[in-house]
Amino acid sequence: MKFILLLFVTLATASVAAAERPIAIVIHGGAGALERGRYSAEEEAAFRDKLTEALDAGYAVLDEGGAALDAVEAAIVILEDAPMFNAGKGAVFTREGKNELDASVMDGATKNAGAVAGVTTVKNPIKLARAVMEDSRHVMFAREGAEAFAEEQGIERVDPDYFYTEKRWDALQKAIAKDKSQQKGELSIDRKFGTVGAVALDAAGNLAAGTSTGGMTMKQWGRVGDSPIIGAGTYADNASCAVSATGHGEFFIRLTLARDICAQVEYGERSVEDATRDMIHNRLTGMNAEGGVIVLGKDGDYAMAFNSAGMFRGVKTAVETRVGIYGTEP
Amino acid sequence: MKFILLLFVTLATASVAAAERPIAIVIHGGAGALERGRYSAEEEAAFRDKLTEALDAGYAVLDEGGAALDAVEAAIVILEDAPMFNAGKGAVFTREGKNELDASVMDGATKNAGAVAGVTTVKNPIKLARAVMEDSRHVMFAREGAEAFAEEQGIERVDPDYFYTEKRWDALQKAIAKDKSQQKGELSIDRKFGTVGAVALDAAGNLAAGTSTGGMTMKQWGRVGDSPIIGAGTYADNASCAVSATGHGEFFIRLTLARDICAQVEYGERSVEDATRDMIHNRLTGMNAEGGVIVLGKDGDYAMAFNSAGMFRGVKTAVETRVGIYGTEP
Repeated sequence: MKFILLLFVTLATASVAAAERPIAIVIHGGAGALERGRYSAEEEAAFRDKLTEALDAGYAVLDEGGAALDAVEAAIVILEDAPMFNAGKGAVFTREGKNELDASVMDGATKNAGAVAGVTTVKNPIKLARAVMEDSRHVMFAREGAEAFAEEQGIERVDPDYFYTEKRWDALQKAIAKDKSQQKGELSIDRKFGTVGAVALDAAGNLAAGTSTGGMTMKQWGRVGDSPIIGAGTYADNASCAVSATGHGEFFIRLTLARDICAQVEYGERSVEDATRDMIHNRLTGMNAEGGVIVLGKDGDYAMAFNSAGMFRGVKTAVETRVGIYGTEP
Repeated sequence: MKFILLLFVTLATASVAAAERPIAIVIHGGAGALERGRYSAEEEAAFRDKLTEALDAGYAVLDEGGAALDAVEAAIVILEDAPMFNAGKGAVFTREGKNELDASVMDGATKNAGAVAGVTTVKNPIKLARAVMEDSRHVMFAREGAEAFAEEQGIERVDPDYFYTEKRWDALQKAIAKDKSQQKGELSIDRKFGTVGAVALDAAGNLAAGTSTGGMTMKQWGRVGDSPIIGAGTYADNASCAVSATGHGEFFIRLTLARDICAQVEYGERSVEDATRDMIHNRLTGMNAEGGVIVLGKDGDYAMAFNSAGMFRGVKTAVETRVGIYGTEP
């Protein structure tokens, strides 16, 4: 059984009440088969606490007049450092038993962007993605070249063992066992596609988006998913919206999912709500693919939508702080 | 001095005359500082002959009722095998003196796609990109993982020395010398961004696009440009258009250039001509970036536009076969 949930809220009330430009941060920690009962009460509370911590960190930046980019980074670093999410510490394993991390970030004010794919020794890939954006001639680096750039920039490195968690290792062993009974080319439907991400709007009216992931359990060597692809997993443009996605990345690349939502807003004059709904519940579902997305419009309207049973998610504005996991809660 | 050229043609006449669905192929071999006088008459003739050969190969596929995807592959393989273009044989060198090749392909009928980044031993990266699309669970592979997949699939491999050409090696040495006198973060304006690409429309009404490149002379290790990024260097959707781009890839990624042109057509209800002009002459030029693009609409309308002095290019339809290099020829 699959739940479908759409959350669309306008910040109009908030901005009127505060008589200033709205600030907001929206985050996700991955979408998937998150039915109620899957986690113990303690586990569930830990998820909610960590999501709240990330929201608070990002919002504090915005509340002090800081930049959307800094808010996005602050929130994502907390999610990367938490072993419960598939990004940074807690990343899943590739088929070869490695942890290969991807991340990207985009600045809606300049449409500048940075991305890294397949890094194995960088503690916080989102920081490296930002360094690529700000301190290199390029937008994207893959694998050893990305590591070399991290070294050059003095970005914190760790031993690959840092990313080991028993839970993810066990998940790989299960996936390997299951794969042996499956046909080539067929993806196990309960394969996990966890990712973390954040989108923010600052008081100056600038949007930013960032995404970070440990990839797909048992992915093939060198596979690049949507998270480091600008326009697929991440997109931000002050003219339309900011997006971070989580799900079956291959479909997100083919749909240019993040860019497409913003293009519907920009060229199709659709609302953030309509564009997001169309993408997740018509196009993504139409491809038999699963996932979710967080979207923040230039006026502060936001959407969190997914066609899986649940999505780790949260939003913080001047008037609300809210986190959710299941499809059956608001 | 910079020439600006736009070529927009409608195939309406052709389709009426032939009383059947239009077929068409459009190709490029890179855009850049291609002023008249740069090449000898012999060199120029060799470029035009090779472009014509690629057009003929692709068009022959379409004319026999073949698929747009096959036409795109046939044309690109010829351009990859020609040492005069920066793709396959003839690829430029990275800062470390290596040849790292990128390619991608997209099927407008299914929006399926395949891409490879940073391969060093694959003779025709476009064939590997297609294998990723058709024979893997994934859309994109980078570096060693892409090589491993090539091995698995029996795709033709070569010794990295195969890609050596004296001309490109000399270009690297010049770039290294020049770089020493430049500030970090500043891109030499005459750095070359050659790429090859093709877009095709078949008799069944299907669009396809493909792009292949040797990257940027003196690029940093592991840099990924726009060519393997679906939505940046390559995009195809039967609902709108097919695009292959060539130029300063970092800006193409930030602009989601290929997807954006098609999004303007799809959501903004702009013509292929208007969308292409807006992208190249407003947005790309507005970012002080250089490049060009070939675009083919679902009804056979096509555009070839660039804001550099020239672009190697060609088009073949039922009613015309035409190749060009400079901005001052039609």
